[in-house]
Amino acid sequence: MSQIETTRIVLASRPDGEPKPSDFRVERAPVAEPGDGEVLLETLFLSLDPYMRGRMSAAKSYVKPVEVGAVMEGEVVARVVASRLAGFAAGDVVLARSGWQTHAVAKGEAIRKAPAAAQPASMALGVLGMPGLTAYVGLANIGKPKPGETVVVAAATGPVGSAVGQIAKLRGARSVGIAGGAAKVRALTDEFGFDVALDHRAADFAEQLAAACPDGIDVYFENVGGKVFEAVLPLLNTFARIPVCGLVAHYNDTAPPPGPDRVPALMRAVLSKRLNVRGFIVYDFSDDIPDFEREMTAWVRDGKVRWREDVVDGLENAPAAFIGLLKGANFGKLVVRVAS
Amino acid sequence: MSQIETTRIVLASRPDGEPKPSDFRVERAPVAEPGDGEVLLETLFLSLDPYMRGRMSAAKSYVKPVEVGAVMEGEVVARVVASRLAGFAAGDVVLARSGWQTHAVAKGEAIRKAPAAAQPASMALGVLGMPGLTAYVGLANIGKPKPGETVVVAAATGPVGSAVGQIAKLRGARSVGIAGGAAKVRALTDEFGFDVALDHRAADFAEQLAAACPDGIDVYFENVGGKVFEAVLPLLNTFARIPVCGLVAHYNDTAPPPGPDRVPALMRAVLSKRLNVRGFIVYDFSDDIPDFEREMTAWVRDGKVRWREDVVDGLENAPAAFIGLLKGANFGKLVVRVAS
Repeated sequence: MSQIETTRIVLASRPDGEPKPSDFRVERAPVAEPGDGEVLLETLFLSLDPYMRGRMSAAKSYVKPVEVGAVMEGEVVARVVASRLAGFAAGDVVLARSGWQTHAVAKGEAIRKAPAAAQPASMALGVLGMPGLTAYVGLANIGKPKPGETVVVAAATGPVGSAVGQIAKLRGARSVGIAGGAAKVRALTDEFGFDVALDHRAADFAEQLAAACPDGIDVYFENVGGKVFEAVLPLLNTFARIPVCGLVAHYNDTAPPPGPDRVPALMRAVLSKRLNVRGFIVYDFSDDIPDFEREMTAWVRDGKVRWREDVVDGLENAPAAFIGLLKGANFGKLVVRVAS
Repeated sequence: MSQIETTRIVLASRPDGEPKPSDFRVERAPVAEPGDGEVLLETLFLSLDPYMRGRMSAAKSYVKPVEVGAVMEGEVVARVVASRLAGFAAGDVVLARSGWQTHAVAKGEAIRKAPAAAQPASMALGVLGMPGLTAYVGLANIGKPKPGETVVVAAATGPVGSAVGQIAKLRGARSVGIAGGAAKVRALTDEFGFDVALDHRAADFAEQLAAACPDGIDVYFENVGGKVFEAVLPLLNTFARIPVCGLVAHYNDTAPPPGPDRVPALMRAVLSKRLNVRGFIVYDFSDDIPDFEREMTAWVRDGKVRWREDVVDGLENAPAAFIGLLKGANFGKLVVRVAS
């Protein structure tokens, strides 16, 4: 095999607030040949997700940050180019966490076959992958919507939010979706079947939300934070559940917002309404993966869960696409087509 | 039966911040004779508890507020003076929610016999009553301490906090108690068996707490809020649980504290540490009452759970005692001996 090079995007510097293009750098580097038990991968699609902003900061989180100079982390769908791993052959399509690069060598424990139902393969990064699973396990284990209850979610045309709304409906609940801009708001009802769609940019958003939830809110699936959560809080019902899987409105914060300090008010609401506020990441509930794969595959096949992708062509465009993601510029699951 | 009068304390005005003596008023009023299915009660002990501050405000909470001019709400241990209710006879000692008064007529559904193990009867308002049950159900259903984990509680010489620490120990956990003042701090280790006792008034309280929790905090039983919660937050471990049953540091707040707004920081901790923050009131878990009565009665009998009372004599002293309770002036479960 002739020497293969990878094109990769590394973290050039830790962003202060909103990431800039100069926080990323494109590099080329040789890729070693796969050793025993390894495969050589060519990336087909790279997933871009809000959590990656956390990895760019030095602050401790549930995993360690990306080092400056290291390849940006991320999940990909890749094609096996060469295999010295039993059970995998050239041409297989796999899921890997090999990051923002065109090629990589991976060990067996770091890859698994992409689900056969993922057609196109990028679905394995969206509705049939981590974002879909996040929606599924967050509702199954924390949100627990009951028939007739009201479920509210923001970033609702995104891959997590759109799945939350549709799963909530399938469980018999009423769904209220929040997005930014007229086209997205229209998609919430027309594409994803939300009962009510709201634009968080509206000046009277809080009043609109109150009007959309005449019986209060039983589940608020938190992936945004900021003023959406502020508007939700007074509407929460007794025993409401708040699965917290993201806070994209705050990922670029450089300092706490000005006062007053609303923590005591939040905790009083937790107490007097007996709220359950619980953070999770998708891997906390990996026991649910078989149920997720069975149910979600059937729902997608039967048209009961719809999904939308925002495909950006070319690895070199990943930084700009990611910067846009944090501002809500994408419309649907954001993936980068690295090779076809 | 000659006409009986009750002496009662009514809410004279809604407090603005800390309650003042003039927010209460003593009245005398005739008590009707008990009708069919009713008993006439003479209050022996009145329980004073922080939640009562919430009832004095007009703000909506989990129950409606006390009306201005109405008798202050509260649980009592009372003696049956006259009974027209099957199964109850003069001389029986019962629990009732007849409030801050010497006498009252109650219906059958509003009373139950005090547990036989409550000797003195005031124990039915403390370790064997609502505060003990609050500790028990909050740990059983939300805190779920595992052997070797660290459990932190404030107001730890109070009836909830002292039970939390001792139950946590009985479940195999390590207990860190927080109180205000040297005498209370000493009691935490000497009387209640906490592994570590801290004074929240110390200038370096946050550093002391960090040193006391070298393996982090797994359960923070929240009944206080304020700066204790601030010091706890950075020490919480991944998957820590925070049962929230009270926020006494904030009950007299008249406005939100100055900024910055720490809600985003709190929610980031919820997310990155996958915290479970859950409010509850004791009645949410009434299915646990038989288990509580069996276990707690045995623990108290065997000296495995100790308890302390702060007894104030005379109903007329209830307002001052309650005002002190909100500032931590009591030492142990605060009860008013109304009659002996």
